[in-house]
Amino acid sequence: MNGAESALRTAAHAGIDVCFANPGTTELPFVAALEAVGAIRPVLGLFEGVCTGAADGYGRMTGRPALTLLHLGPGLANGLANLHNARRARTPVVNLVGDHATWHLAADPPLASDITSLARTVSTFVRTTRSASELSGDVAAAVAAACEPPGGVATLVVPADCQWEEAPGPPATPSPATGPAPVSEDAVGVAAKLLTGGSAVLLLGGPALHRPGLMAAGRVARATGCRLISEGFPARMERGAGLPPVERMGYFPEQVLGQLSGVTGIVLAGAAAPVAFFGYPSQPSSLVPTGADVCVLASPDQEVVGGLEALADALDAPNTGLTAELARPERPTGELSVATLGATVAHLLPEGAVVVDEAATSGVGYHHLSATAAPHTCLGLTGGAIGQGLPVATGAALACPDRPVVALQADGSAAYTLQALWTQARQSLDVTTVLCNNRSYRILQIEMARSGLAPDREAPAGLTDLSHPDIGWARLAEGFGVPAVSVDSADGLCRHLEAALGEGGPHLIEARL
Amino acid sequence: MNGAESALRTAAHAGIDVCFANPGTTELPFVAALEAVGAIRPVLGLFEGVCTGAADGYGRMTGRPALTLLHLGPGLANGLANLHNARRARTPVVNLVGDHATWHLAADPPLASDITSLARTVSTFVRTTRSASELSGDVAAAVAAACEPPGGVATLVVPADCQWEEAPGPPATPSPATGPAPVSEDAVGVAAKLLTGGSAVLLLGGPALHRPGLMAAGRVARATGCRLISEGFPARMERGAGLPPVERMGYFPEQVLGQLSGVTGIVLAGAAAPVAFFGYPSQPSSLVPTGADVCVLASPDQEVVGGLEALADALDAPNTGLTAELARPERPTGELSVATLGATVAHLLPEGAVVVDEAATSGVGYHHLSATAAPHTCLGLTGGAIGQGLPVATGAALACPDRPVVALQADGSAAYTLQALWTQARQSLDVTTVLCNNRSYRILQIEMARSGLAPDREAPAGLTDLSHPDIGWARLAEGFGVPAVSVDSADGLCRHLEAALGEGGPHLIEARL
Repeated sequence: MNGAESALRTAAHAGIDVCFANPGTTELPFVAALEAVGAIRPVLGLFEGVCTGAADGYGRMTGRPALTLLHLGPGLANGLANLHNARRARTPVVNLVGDHATWHLAADPPLASDITSLARTVSTFVRTTRSASELSGDVAAAVAAACEPPGGVATLVVPADCQWEEAPGPPATPSPATGPAPVSEDAVGVAAKLLTGGSAVLLLGGPALHRPGLMAAGRVARATGCRLISEGFPARMERGAGLPPVERMGYFPEQVLGQLSGVTGIVLAGAAAPVAFFGYPSQPSSLVPTGADVCVLASPDQEVVGGLEALADALDAPNTGLTAELARPERPTGELSVATLGATVAHLLPEGAVVVDEAATSGVGYHHLSATAAPHTCLGLTGGAIGQGLPVATGAALACPDRPVVALQADGSAAYTLQALWTQARQSLDVTTVLCNNRSYRILQIEMARSGLAPDREAPAGLTDLSHPDIGWARLAEGFGVPAVSVDSADGLCRHLEAALGEGGPHLIEARL
Repeated sequence: MNGAESALRTAAHAGIDVCFANPGTTELPFVAALEAVGAIRPVLGLFEGVCTGAADGYGRMTGRPALTLLHLGPGLANGLANLHNARRARTPVVNLVGDHATWHLAADPPLASDITSLARTVSTFVRTTRSASELSGDVAAAVAAACEPPGGVATLVVPADCQWEEAPGPPATPSPATGPAPVSEDAVGVAAKLLTGGSAVLLLGGPALHRPGLMAAGRVARATGCRLISEGFPARMERGAGLPPVERMGYFPEQVLGQLSGVTGIVLAGAAAPVAFFGYPSQPSSLVPTGADVCVLASPDQEVVGGLEALADALDAPNTGLTAELARPERPTGELSVATLGATVAHLLPEGAVVVDEAATSGVGYHHLSATAAPHTCLGLTGGAIGQGLPVATGAALACPDRPVVALQADGSAAYTLQALWTQARQSLDVTTVLCNNRSYRILQIEMARSGLAPDREAPAGLTDLSHPDIGWARLAEGFGVPAVSVDSADGLCRHLEAALGEGGPHLIEARL
């Protein structure tokens, strides 16, 4: 058995069952071994950012790492933006990056570069394998590191000779996963006190936004009257009827400061204290209101759900917390706008759907209505590196073949990793992309106006306008094998979204705003 | 004047006239300053790899750096693969990477990451600006570093507050460029001796493959009978009738070893000694034949052309060297194959065309005929990071608006950075892409068979096959605003290529092999 096969047997033993791959010559022993081992499904991406984003989506939905298989430094580089998002989402991911044979690096061949420096920027674990016999042990260590609470990106650089040479002995046995550390009684006591006095917020992030965490938070809110607010860009949030209604943290500093105005205490459960997404002149970095007390109930690497449950119990909270009632909006008609687009999605969203939200400014309508839509899962743009939506939708659909995936996707962001559509077609994934086409980087136009840099908002259109030429999203989707239509009315969107959801398989609907 | 405007005035003063940009919120003062300064043309890319590849193409054709404008770590990461190619091409490029305001980094906002570690992997110069008043001086230093022989990538990380704050005093004055170091007389003497005894090769790279270098090399070949061989993946090579016929270094180690069999001396002019592109079991790293003497006439940072001319003079070479005669192949007919595709291009190629070669296995036919085609410029895949062709063609067309650009493009590679087609349409660039669609990563299939990893070559098709679904390249091009057709015969390719070259503006012809 060669090193590559030994490594993949260890990975399969550790529960890994999918590999999002864009391989090259230095990864071919892994390609052959995927075939030989059989237990790990190879999924081809046309671009590495598709592979890493899909691994992120897969990991968010399953809680288990997927493998990626990437080609040397440039292949890893192409995948880094979505690994940045995975890092911020604390998603377990294991990257296998092929490298030149150990003895060939000194020749400085054209594709040689500093892979580990790239890997360190996104990974909690980076190692370069030194021999075929060490490879399966290195994979076991990488999987363990990726799964260590709260979860993270592990990158193993594997020289080609360590893949193709014989690996003596049996593959390494993966080590058992360690659980998160419990929350201290002190933290529960401090949090309980903070939430029962003054105007308090329970700020939820990470596992606090999964169903058990939310249910416990709903109990706390019912017992104390505190507000529940989620981080602005949750990795994974359960949402909709039957769950507690949770406000979402705003985007601009002035929005957050308004939202938190008068708040005297903030309890953090799996979330960080609020900071501005960007720094602006005359705006603070920290968005904690002056004088407010902040306490950490549970950091992301702790038992966040257990901490919330302990808090609810300490407060003698009722067993049933606050929950939202189902309130589907009417079937929208008329003009297609951010509002009617959101209402259409909320009207039609099936129970159990996964919504991947990279709609940017076009997603506001959905956000307003999602708390009372049918219960669903929402995956957000954790790290702000755009080009995440279509790949994450791809990975989520592979992870949950029985659940429809709806990708709410801005046009500017979609253009980064549109190649994901091909993988959706190749794998017949049930993803419906609502491509919100406003023919601009609208957020930049808003930022230009806010900043006073462009008193005439039209001036710098050269770098924020996407209408010359108009991008034909339906053609692009069809080119990658995904059936597509273009709509410019709420009725049209409603009709085609309903049909796509009924039909299954990948679709793209260009919603021309 | 704020820091951004001050910086761009310095850049313009240093001769920079184009900025390939994909900006975000942290670069908006630069966006506004591009408008205010006016002397630097902003060119929008939908993906950062398009911007960096275009800057590479622009720099190869002009010898001057373009700016790129990129959004924090993820934006730079998306551009790294083509910066890797630019590094290997020794192209001058100046990256401006926006970052969070200096005082905001400590808050660790979602988009924060280690930008300088990313930058160092591709750059000869990396600096983070500390204040608005230092920004224009930092830009001057970055431009100087990029232009320092032999040329390289310079990356300046610019916190947003250094862009928006007032910059007191006038913008910095760019420092005059330093020229390359001269070649030593000793080196000329040793090279002359090596080339006049035994079976010798003059190995050409960098500026040795520009017209003056080639003409001097042709004189040397005529005087000594030595063979002229180019590096396998030249950054820029003048090619065709009226220039000396130059062999191209092979790709697989066994090809190169065969090509160099019996060679007793190798003189390096702007090229490195031959090494294998990848390491293989039972194949060496270094491809210098056993016992052959190697001498460096000129390293890439020296006066390569001056060295070749001094060598020709030392050899008393005639003023006119070996040159190839024009030998256009007949107009091909019949089946479309690698051979007839190459013959079609060689038949129709206009004098002065720029050929961007990322055709991989489909480019072999063109290579066989290019030495006797009409004189043209060929730009190669220097660093092996695929996804270079369409962006480099974009930058080359902007650099040389009066020259037709023909992009010979493999399908697998094109899928990495197809967004470049939109910029070609937006800027009405005269680029004709011949998209060689063989519906596979053919090189990987060949490597699998060579390696013995896949005795049944069909086995691992899952990761090397691109036919499920078939990618509709004409639709993709039309989606990005580029007129396109699909052809499956030599006649069809010939007719449509002729029409596209006659018409100007961007076109894509999908050649179905």
